[in-house]
Amino acid sequence: MSDAPLPPGLDRASFDKALGELRKTLGDDKVLATELDRQTYLDPYALGTGLDHESCGALTPTSVEDVQAIVGIANAHKLPLWPVARGKNLGYGAAAPVLAGTAVVDMTRMNRILDVDTEFAHCTIEPGVGFYQMDEHLTANRIPLWMSVPANGWGSLVGNALERGIGYTPYGDNTSKLCGLEVVMPDGKLVRTGLGAMDGNKAWANYQYGFGTSWDQMFAQSNFGIVTKANMWLMPEPELSFHALVNLPRMEDIVWAMDVLAKLRLSGVVDHNVVFGNYLHDASAMTTRADWYDGPGPIPDDVAEKIQKKFNVGWWTFHISVYGDEPVAMAKKGLIDAAFKDKLATPIPWVPLRPGEPREPLAVAAGKPFVLPLAVVNWMGGRGGHIGFSPILPPSGKLAWEAFLRRKKRFEAMGLDYYSSFTVGHRHIANVNMILYDRDDAEMTKKAHDLFVQMIGDAREEGYGEYRTHIDFMDAVSKTYDFNGGALMRLNEAVKDTLDPNGIIAPGKNGIWPARLRKGRVA
Amino acid sequence: MSDAPLPPGLDRASFDKALGELRKTLGDDKVLATELDRQTYLDPYALGTGLDHESCGALTPTSVEDVQAIVGIANAHKLPLWPVARGKNLGYGAAAPVLAGTAVVDMTRMNRILDVDTEFAHCTIEPGVGFYQMDEHLTANRIPLWMSVPANGWGSLVGNALERGIGYTPYGDNTSKLCGLEVVMPDGKLVRTGLGAMDGNKAWANYQYGFGTSWDQMFAQSNFGIVTKANMWLMPEPELSFHALVNLPRMEDIVWAMDVLAKLRLSGVVDHNVVFGNYLHDASAMTTRADWYDGPGPIPDDVAEKIQKKFNVGWWTFHISVYGDEPVAMAKKGLIDAAFKDKLATPIPWVPLRPGEPREPLAVAAGKPFVLPLAVVNWMGGRGGHIGFSPILPPSGKLAWEAFLRRKKRFEAMGLDYYSSFTVGHRHIANVNMILYDRDDAEMTKKAHDLFVQMIGDAREEGYGEYRTHIDFMDAVSKTYDFNGGALMRLNEAVKDTLDPNGIIAPGKNGIWPARLRKGRVA
Repeated sequence: MSDAPLPPGLDRASFDKALGELRKTLGDDKVLATELDRQTYLDPYALGTGLDHESCGALTPTSVEDVQAIVGIANAHKLPLWPVARGKNLGYGAAAPVLAGTAVVDMTRMNRILDVDTEFAHCTIEPGVGFYQMDEHLTANRIPLWMSVPANGWGSLVGNALERGIGYTPYGDNTSKLCGLEVVMPDGKLVRTGLGAMDGNKAWANYQYGFGTSWDQMFAQSNFGIVTKANMWLMPEPELSFHALVNLPRMEDIVWAMDVLAKLRLSGVVDHNVVFGNYLHDASAMTTRADWYDGPGPIPDDVAEKIQKKFNVGWWTFHISVYGDEPVAMAKKGLIDAAFKDKLATPIPWVPLRPGEPREPLAVAAGKPFVLPLAVVNWMGGRGGHIGFSPILPPSGKLAWEAFLRRKKRFEAMGLDYYSSFTVGHRHIANVNMILYDRDDAEMTKKAHDLFVQMIGDAREEGYGEYRTHIDFMDAVSKTYDFNGGALMRLNEAVKDTLDPNGIIAPGKNGIWPARLRKGRVA
Repeated sequence: MSDAPLPPGLDRASFDKALGELRKTLGDDKVLATELDRQTYLDPYALGTGLDHESCGALTPTSVEDVQAIVGIANAHKLPLWPVARGKNLGYGAAAPVLAGTAVVDMTRMNRILDVDTEFAHCTIEPGVGFYQMDEHLTANRIPLWMSVPANGWGSLVGNALERGIGYTPYGDNTSKLCGLEVVMPDGKLVRTGLGAMDGNKAWANYQYGFGTSWDQMFAQSNFGIVTKANMWLMPEPELSFHALVNLPRMEDIVWAMDVLAKLRLSGVVDHNVVFGNYLHDASAMTTRADWYDGPGPIPDDVAEKIQKKFNVGWWTFHISVYGDEPVAMAKKGLIDAAFKDKLATPIPWVPLRPGEPREPLAVAAGKPFVLPLAVVNWMGGRGGHIGFSPILPPSGKLAWEAFLRRKKRFEAMGLDYYSSFTVGHRHIANVNMILYDRDDAEMTKKAHDLFVQMIGDAREEGYGEYRTHIDFMDAVSKTYDFNGGALMRLNEAVKDTLDPNGIIAPGKNGIWPARLRKGRVA
């Protein structure tokens, strides 16, 4: 306990005093500050020990009043807080704070499902509500609504939406399905956004904007408050859906495939995020590298071919679905078949799904939580980890190809296996370049780090920026947002300093530092 | 000139000095400050003379640098500014400011179409770009993209989106189609939001959120800066669309019709805002009240019947459309027919539209600007005006019916003709209660005012709030947003005071006053 890292400006005596007040106010069981507790909140995929992001402990509130009490004590002692929903932001730091010595505010115990409205298809939930929990609730109560679930099903609905995670149904832009938040502000005051700014408003969860300026997105990927409640829209169960996995044999296929998919997305024929990934997608989840190859450097082409053959996949594979009332789903399926007719050797192997049929085999495509993809971290052996460099591109085959070539070369020059996906959104591609590593191999984690830094620079040069990043790189990435000398960050900072003068909420989150810690910003 | 109203705290000498500096910096032709100029910027539909909202003149910048110069001089003299895009916010005050003596910043001359990207279906435009101008550009260049156009086609694409106006195609939630803004902040600094915060980012117009907190909606219905540029998403021309006007004979039909439409909206079969209005919708645009009735009080039932017969409409009429590739459009049309089959005496009279066919007859349903609906203001005779009270309801037939009965009774008790629409959005109803009046009839405008105030109170009591309002009522409506003592407004004010310490941008907009004028807030 006494060897907990301390945040800048807080000495051990003041820290112990703060901790004492927290224990007294919240109760001992809500203050977790042993060494083991601190280890629990380390980044399990850290590039290195992760101790540079070690918290001073964690607080586990169970009510809005608890959160307000925490914020009050934190202000009094200038104790920085790092709010996490369920702490499963894996690949981005999980529950670990940017600044060592920050106290994690773990909202996992605030996990009430306050309302699920079947008629209007929305819910009101606390940040601790997890995908599995909500799935059980919907199933047990036979509520015909689907969630939008990200690849990692361990997390929180609200947390994922606030971090701008995505799912793979038509409701997959999770952040766009938030409809009103309740937030404890840095001064402890409780605010409700949107129509919820009217006490007892009956349409809070029905209309996103409210009256006047809208703040929901202010609280995403930022540090202006602690969200304690959110309304989210859920998808009415479709009468029929079809799902398919499509394989493309050659790496060059990405060029035409991106163009075809982009057109289908823009016209609305395909209305979900299409994950388009290379052959390591399945291989890395279901086997380890050692099963295939134990040489140095990246996997050679002949091994890559063996992997593709074994998993019966192409160089690329993508998942595609249609959803809707039966005639609409049939019409869309037909249009997709037509769009790919001259491009594929075999017809698209559609699998139908109707209400009442088991959705588990289709997993995220049918709104069911799933954790198998996390197994990719075992690829390199040892204590595995992954980190993704994720710039946003326009949805163009040519641009995707150029980005692909340059990134692949960078991976290979570094001796790392190239693994990436080009997820096709409504009008963009989120290109996740996933670095897999063995945390116990110091040389490898150094290479992963250096590769990440190279890619930030390459992308900036090309005119692309990341939409989300790991705590290690929040400063570096935020610095690539450099229009007019970083004018947007100056706006962030002005708002930060006003709302959070003591700089207690998540210092350094997405590059936003409070005034008192700004000079300490990582270069 | 010398009798221009002055804002609080600015004496005539200082005002003249500011005006002189503005003339010198911008050029005489960009400073409009004669009495006639001021009259031009009065609210043409004001309930009364409109002089309580008279500007001190208008500034008409033609560049970002002009806007920055204006903001600089305004800060030096504490001259409040009221930015308008094209000033056509009719029914909400048009170009007139809340606070008399404020200078209008009329962006009409900043009307460059900087880019239209046909492949990715977006544009980059200045706020002065009007719907007719863009329509001409798209038509002349044979660009197969559709705008989303509101009922009043005179306005600005950007202005309408920032005020949360709506259109009637699947892209009808205009504010949700903004994808990155360029803004002159109150201190004169230029900020770009979203991915545009990276200089030269190639995907600025493709992805809405950027990295970290997103500010686009901060600049909607607010006063935190002057938008000088915006990216907006346009809709790819559909291969086929069908359009129909459906009549429902009895006022009670709203109950089942709202439920049917809400279900079709939620499932995505209908993916546009459905305007569902009473019989005065057409009658008031094409005739005047005097053509039908010259008695006192609201129109009697037998006259209402005569009007419905003449226009061959029911008590309610609504416009419904489907859009898409041919098989999708056909499938959706079939589903709508099935949903209404047992409810309507005759089949839905669908009109098809394909590329190359004239879209004008379908007007806003086909993304073409249109101004006929503005003729409703002539209904009562004299210099007409309209003002709409627009609370947001959940999309329920029962709730719509209750709201309908109470509002109708209020209109009739006040001796005014009940005219309203219940526009069905994705998960909500925007219920516009339109008061039509003769501005030259002082008794009538007083009644209109009193009715509006009554409806604010009624709706608050019921748990509903407006999504947008007239400059006369911005304070009153913002006060209905009362959760935790108006906590959201305190947040607005904290941000306002930081970003705009001199309180120069749009004092009183949507109830947000700068510190120095806050005590002057209308009760």
